[in-house]
Amino acid sequence: MTSLTPDLGARFTLAQDIVRAAGALALDYFENRETLVIETKRDLQDVVSIADRNVETMIRDRVAEHFPEDGFLGEEYGLVDGTSGYTWVVDPIDGTSPFVNGMPNWCVSIAVLHDSEPVIGVISAPCHDELYLSAKGQGATLNGKVLSLDPSRTIRNAVTGLGANNHVTPAFVGKMVENLLEAGGNFIRNGSGALMLAYVAAGRLVGYYEPYMHAWDCLAGYCLITEAGGWVLPFPVEGGALTKGAPVLAASPGAIKDLKKIAGLPADA
Amino acid sequence: MTSLTPDLGARFTLAQDIVRAAGALALDYFENRETLVIETKRDLQDVVSIADRNVETMIRDRVAEHFPEDGFLGEEYGLVDGTSGYTWVVDPIDGTSPFVNGMPNWCVSIAVLHDSEPVIGVISAPCHDELYLSAKGQGATLNGKVLSLDPSRTIRNAVTGLGANNHVTPAFVGKMVENLLEAGGNFIRNGSGALMLAYVAAGRLVGYYEPYMHAWDCLAGYCLITEAGGWVLPFPVEGGALTKGAPVLAASPGAIKDLKKIAGLPADA
Repeated sequence: MTSLTPDLGARFTLAQDIVRAAGALALDYFENRETLVIETKRDLQDVVSIADRNVETMIRDRVAEHFPEDGFLGEEYGLVDGTSGYTWVVDPIDGTSPFVNGMPNWCVSIAVLHDSEPVIGVISAPCHDELYLSAKGQGATLNGKVLSLDPSRTIRNAVTGLGANNHVTPAFVGKMVENLLEAGGNFIRNGSGALMLAYVAAGRLVGYYEPYMHAWDCLAGYCLITEAGGWVLPFPVEGGALTKGAPVLAASPGAIKDLKKIAGLPADA
Repeated sequence: MTSLTPDLGARFTLAQDIVRAAGALALDYFENRETLVIETKRDLQDVVSIADRNVETMIRDRVAEHFPEDGFLGEEYGLVDGTSGYTWVVDPIDGTSPFVNGMPNWCVSIAVLHDSEPVIGVISAPCHDELYLSAKGQGATLNGKVLSLDPSRTIRNAVTGLGANNHVTPAFVGKMVENLLEAGGNFIRNGSGALMLAYVAAGRLVGYYEPYMHAWDCLAGYCLITEAGGWVLPFPVEGGALTKGAPVLAASPGAIKDLKKIAGLPADA
């Protein structure tokens, strides 16, 4: 483990404080969700509520208070560029659909990018009282326990997470499910991509594939997985790409080859 | 609400006591799961542990102590016929794969059949501290709150649960995913069919479809859903069918027609 630079260390400390507070605020909304007004975005399945917006605002305000020169990208209110070289990338509630329907599989996901790389990834899963923390060179932890992936796990003896949305066709989604099963795999889709990525870091899932995802959904999970000893397909963040979607693939060491094949990627991707 | 017969009332009281105790025992195994030896059944994805076996044995012993004349079917140790007309149908841990991999989506599922109909359905989801209770004519509750389905929910404005196993082909599973998405639906698969059926009763999912399931996976959920105002495809239990698999389909009132179509069933099924 290398030591943290003061700049990174200060942001890691703040990220931990914020994700705890954001998780508590989101949980309060969840427990009173019958009062929430649900709105739709791209279609009837793409939902949002005041909980998403107010949790993001709280995170934005806390970051701006401590690091006003940092950039900030949130799912609900978009990108504000910074000047420090650090950019916070936040999904205030990943898994809004489970959230508004009363299911526990949602989380708060906060990443910090530096030099185009996620150097901090923290995720709070309040319904399960779980806190995932990682920073570059510091390893990854779940509720304080160090995470380290088991190379003997493959898609055939463990479970893979899948995700999808209406940016890809139903036929494509059906085919990716078929391909994983044909290869001897098994899948879950719990409704929160960021949480399933955290599960990859924790060794609960052997990998995660989603053909189109946004930076706020995946970058915290990516940092966690890398720090736990896993592999991730680089997510494009340069030249305006940060706010666009891209394929997301993450794997435990023993599942990289199989999952690249299922995702239609070359072996050296 | 009709009153319970003494025979049914006594069994409902016992079922509640047992599912609570079984949930606590299973949770204890879950929290110490690193010591469990995992064995496989039909393939590498079909897992079982001493936790499944010992929770079932505990439930069998408790039922036999109070109702020695009742039949008992459990996933792990099979069917013992009874003489009372009542048969307990039990999955000690539904969602063994999430369980052994450290994910919270598993449950204890206990049904009681009488005259070929599930008249009691109780489910404990210990990681979420949730207890689902139902008995024929008594309604369904979640942690004491009465469950009643909202007819305005459809597959297009709510989430559907899907399940599958290696009794059906990967191509079939891929196609059912595609069909649901093509119809404007969205899905989760959390790894526990019984728990997703309980979520249908709770209005969190608008329906559940799995092309091949066993009685121990679905009958408790079926009783819960019926009592909450939903519809279920009858599960065959006569003439030796109880120990065999069959399609499982359950729906909130506004999703019946769409889900029958997706499952390839006639409108009057």
